[in-house]
Parts: sequence; C-alpha cells; structure tokens
Amino acid sequence: MSQVYLDYNATAPVRPEAIEAMTRVLGQVGNPSSIHAAGRAARAVVEAARNDIAALIGGPASTVIFTGGGTEANALAVDSAVATGSRRLLISAIEHDCVIETAKASGAAVEILPVTPDGVADLDWLKARLAAWDAADGRPFVALMLANNETGVIQPVLAASEIVRAAEGWLHVDAVQAAGKIMTDSRALGADTLAVSAHKLGGPQGVGALTFGPRATMVRTQHGGGQERGRRAGTENVAGVAAFAAAARAALSEPQIDPEPRDAVAERLKAAGAVVIAEGAPRLTNTLCVSTPGWSSDLQVMALDLAGFMVSAGSACSSGKVKASPVLAAMQLDDLAGSAIRVSGGWGTTPADWAAFADAWIAAHTSFVARRRAPAA
Amino acid sequence: MSQVYLDYNATAPVRPEAIEAMTRVLGQVGNPSSIHAAGRAARAVVEAARNDIAALIGGPASTVIFTGGGTEANALAVDSAVATGSRRLLISAIEHDCVIETAKASGAAVEILPVTPDGVADLDWLKARLAAWDAADGRPFVALMLANNETGVIQPVLAASEIVRAAEGWLHVDAVQAAGKIMTDSRALGADTLAVSAHKLGGPQGVGALTFGPRATMVRTQHGGGQERGRRAGTENVAGVAAFAAAARAALSEPQIDPEPRDAVAERLKAAGAVVIAEGAPRLTNTLCVSTPGWSSDLQVMALDLAGFMVSAGSACSSGKVKASPVLAAMQLDDLAGSAIRVSGGWGTTPADWAAFADAWIAAHTSFVARRRAPAA
Repeated sequence: MSQVYLDYNATAPVRPEAIEAMTRVLGQVGNPSSIHAAGRAARAVVEAARNDIAALIGGPASTVIFTGGGTEANALAVDSAVATGSRRLLISAIEHDCVIETAKASGAAVEILPVTPDGVADLDWLKARLAAWDAADGRPFVALMLANNETGVIQPVLAASEIVRAAEGWLHVDAVQAAGKIMTDSRALGADTLAVSAHKLGGPQGVGALTFGPRATMVRTQHGGGQERGRRAGTENVAGVAAFAAAARAALSEPQIDPEPRDAVAERLKAAGAVVIAEGAPRLTNTLCVSTPGWSSDLQVMALDLAGFMVSAGSACSSGKVKASPVLAAMQLDDLAGSAIRVSGGWGTTPADWAAFADAWIAAHTSFVARRRAPAA
Repeated sequence: MSQVYLDYNATAPVRPEAIEAMTRVLGQVGNPSSIHAAGRAARAVVEAARNDIAALIGGPASTVIFTGGGTEANALAVDSAVATGSRRLLISAIEHDCVIETAKASGAAVEILPVTPDGVADLDWLKARLAAWDAADGRPFVALMLANNETGVIQPVLAASEIVRAAEGWLHVDAVQAAGKIMTDSRALGADTLAVSAHKLGGPQGVGALTFGPRATMVRTQHGGGQERGRRAGTENVAGVAAFAAAARAALSEPQIDPEPRDAVAERLKAAGAVVIAEGAPRLTNTLCVSTPGWSSDLQVMALDLAGFMVSAGSACSSGKVKASPVLAAMQLDDLAGSAIRVSGGWGTTPADWAAFADAWIAAHTSFVARRRAPAA
C-alpha cells in the first residue's frame, strides 16, 4: 500500500538539498570556536547559513540567533521581554503551546488576546487594551503568530505591529508554520522578534532561529560559552544549520503552493457533509482543517492511516491529549473540535496526492456512515 | 599538505555509523507525537535511541532526557536543583563554563570546590564543607565533572558521591568529555544527574542527554508540548538522537584508547622543555595538556595549524578570550597557562598521527627558539 504523507504542519519530509548539506557538513570536523583550519571552516559554514536564514526572516545576519528548535526560539523572545521589563503578556488565543506555556511559566501576568470566530486575532480588542495599558505592567508584550498550525489562518501581523508600535510595545511573531510558505521578513512585518523552525520547511528537526529588531533587547537564557555573540551558549549545530539554510534556500526559490488541489478536496468533503474551518479567512494554501460532525477526529485519523493517508487531529504536540483543540475552542467552535482533522501538504505533495486523499476520505466516510446506520448485530 | 586533527575534545569527527544513521533517518518523515504510521515509526527510532543512551549513561531509559546539547543538559540539572530547593551550589573550580555560568545565573549562591595542584577535586574540603552545611542553604548541590576537558584529569566522582550522599545532597556529573572514553554509568558512579553530549564521542552537534536518579527531581525549563514525558518541550530531533545512539554504540564497543602513543609524544616534548600538566593524576588516555614556558599558546596553535596539525589552547569555548585558562589557574599553574596547549585524539587517530604531531611540534619549537635567539634585524 502506498503511503501519502499529508501532515507537513507536524513535520515536513526533509528536502534532498538539506540531506545533502547535512551529510556533506557531517563529513567535515570542526568546532566554530576553534581557531585552527577546521574551526575556521566550521565557522564559515555557520555564518553562510546565518546569511541564508537572514534572507528568510529579515534583518542583518548579526541579529539571527540559532537555537535548538522553534520552541527554544519562541521561549527566548518571551523570556527576553520579561527579563527586560514586560510584566504583562498579551498572548493570542491561538498561539502554539510553547508560547502560551512559556508565558505562563515566566512569572509575568498572562492575558489572552481573543480571536474572531474565523480564527483571526481581534485587533479592535488589542487596540482598546493597549489604550488602557497600566504603566505598572511595564512594556506591553504581544505574541501573535503569523499563521496558525491547525487552521492555517494567516494573522494580520502588519496591522498588529502598527498598533503595538504605537503603544511602544514588543510584538513577537511565531512564524514557525508560515516560514517557507508565505513572506516572513520580520522587518517588513514589523515584528520585534520572529521565530522559525527548520523542520517545518524541509530542514532537520532540532534547529530553529530567532531574529530581533532594534527595539528588542535579547537576554541570554542558555549560559556557558560565548557562542552566538554571547546570546546562546553551546557548540553550534554546524551541519544542522547548514541543512536548515539549504532548506530555506529551496523554499524561497519555489512559487507559493497552488491552493487549487486543496480547494477541490474541500469542495468534495463539503458535499459529503464536512465543514471547512475558517473558510472565509486568509489561509496558508497547504492547509485544510475540516470537521465532520458525528465522526470523531481520532476515528478519522485512524481510518485514514489504515488506508495509507497520514493526517492529524489538531497539532501533533497535543495529540494524545483528550481535550479538544484550544484553537478551535477560541474560535467558539467547540462543537466542531472533536470531529476536526488537519490535512497539510508541502514541497513533495502532488495534486494526485490531494485527490487520492479525497477518495480515501470519502470511502472511509461512506463506510462510517453505513456502519452507524446498520442495526446492532 | 595533510591535515591531522588532534582536537577531539573540542569536537570529534562524526563517526561513519552516525552519518549513516543520520542520513537514513532524515529520509523518513515523522513527528514522534503524531499517531499515524510515520509518527509511530519516528517514536520507535527515538525510543530505541533512548535505550542505547541509557546503556551509555546508566539508569532505565525512562530517566534519559534528550536535549539540544551538553550545555542544555548541564543547565537542566543545575536549574532543577535550584528549583527544588538548593540555595547554595558547590561547583568545582574546573567545571565547564556552562555549569559555572548557569549556576551563577540561577539565583542561588555559588561556592567553588577547590582542586589540588594536580587538578583533582579536593574531597577533604568537600567533606568538611558539607559537615558544616547550614540548613538554610537547602539541599546541598555539588557539581563535579567526570573528566576535565583541558587536562583530561579524571575526577574521584564515586568517592565524592559517597560524601554527597551522606549529606543527603545532589551530585551532578558533567560527563561530556568522559563519555565514550571511560565508564559513564551514572548509577555505578553514584551520580544523581549526569550529562553527556553527542558530538564529543563522534555523534552530531546539537544533541545531548541528561539522566537522573531517584533522588533528583527534574523540572521543566523548556515549556510547550508534552515531549520527553513532559520534561522538555519541542519536537524531538529524531535523526540526531539516532545518530547519537549509533555513535554511542560504536564507542561502547571499542577498547579504551591506548595511552602509549600519547605518552611517547609527552616524553619527546618534555625532552624539549615542555611540562606535562597533571602528569601524576589519572587522565583520559586521549588527552595531552603541555606547557612550554616562553612560547605562547596562541603562537603554538598557529604554528601547528600552518603545519597541518589542529590542536587548541585551552577549551574551544573560551578560545578568543584573552584571560588564561581558569582550569590551570585553579591548579595554581598561572605561570604555565599562557603557554599551554591541549592535544586530544580519538576514534580516528592513529599512532602515526601522534608521532607526526611530535615531529611537527619539535620542528616548530626549534624554529621558535632559533628566531628568539637570533639578533634583531
């Protein structure tokens, strides 16, 4: 049975360019802190990669900090804001767990920035909230992701940045799901900090990056050696950042993913009774979140898995949790959350993969409906 | 010109087994948190790797936490101790910067556990200090590395563990340099926590691990998803831990490195006026730290680099710093520190590499002495 992977938002297949870069650099020994030839060569690899990631996320290369993943990159932004005087954090209701949980653990007060039923951050709320800001809460900090991992909804980050800037606040943008799919230039978006992860765009797992602008002061949270200009201790993952850079270059050279095959699938599933989540909002063209009332997410994922199609129920990180998706709950879609699945393609996905998925989903749905209608044996 | 790499203590060449494992796993997509086939396969890779690392560092696999490197693993131990009630940390004078700096940043008081002139932790001091422990300082925390990165001196960890255990304290062992070279079973050593890094034993950079025993309570310092049994959020570096495991298996299957080629080099350098640091102490058999009064470390490293031999002046992490090695200063060898170099071999080093190094060093030394004696032009 052929396997069709449609869970790119959980992790993307590693691009051939990234595997090639990884393998090549793993064959070169060197610690970038060493002053001998091997060390200098390793340093050159890291700095070339930093230039490539700067092209992805904006800002001079000197403002790109490599981390051990997207979680660490997001945490570095939150922790830096708290360490430099933010005592109340406005976190959008649809942020990834790593942003929400880091904020809660930071010691600062956490307040949720609500989203509309379409899954878009409520900027009227944000503007009003910042207008009533209490100076005792320190500098306002706002976390708003660029694209949501479950719904694919693209957030109005540029508009949010103008509101945050007017309040002299700090806007952090988690661009982990957006990178490689839409524009993620932190300067063009008005982000004070912006985080990305390699493995969502076809790079290796265990590598991420954060960039920061002139209004963000970074603190060090991992202590030791003087790596990353003293901002993040620990021997650099030389092969990992080279592979991240190779994947980023490949992603930047591609046209945006054509939404047509996904939209055709959506129409077929809707005809069978499914509801497309956030259909009216701007969305990543690779992502389809659909709910089919009465057919639980887990049963759908398992039936599709047996048929060779890999999709997810909500985000991978919260798989196994019993509670419904907080993202859909924030959209007041509690009724749909338990029967929602996320289907996400990427660089290796073909129109035929999407069409085959729709066939498999319809077959599984037909079978489910028939079993439900059959009298008990 | 051939290049001879003798800086394994900075970073080791990646073993072929590790490159093979990395490349193979990079070709399999999967997020271990996903419940579909690809996710389950990725989960199986991570758990198999965890078993291999448990074999390296002791304890059940469920007590192995994968991290983004040795720095993070060491920090997780220090931060967990402070979070669970240690208010004064006894840090050996020769610990790696990541242990010392994390301790200083933790908010707890930091006190230095001295070493003897041979570079061995002073356990009489430790015993007396713990006997006079003030209960207001909370549970005693002691950090003592298993083998020093600069001198190679093996520390009396087992004896220290008995002293720490008697005081109901927490012994943390940084085994980053020791792993793959000598026994690093945390249970046999009496360590409450023990940290390792993949890239020092021929695995990839950006991967580490910590194990903890029944008297250590770990806290989470990286928040978000429920990975690593809730102890360390962030998508697992599946290919990285597989490669780490492959390197660990290879290291565990090898005999200990024969000290003879290194010792023969030491004799030749001593005959030319060099002093072997910590010659009387038990040392890793791969490491030679020698000082040649009057010939600065940097000049030696550069002259050897030009001749194709890569060695270091102190630890790579502190290269570029002007101050002399704190490790040698702690051994009251300030006079020798500025002219010390570290030569370290490993899995790919041959006896011929060591002999060629000695030839190159002697040639460079002869040239240096001749230039110094020549009248100014």
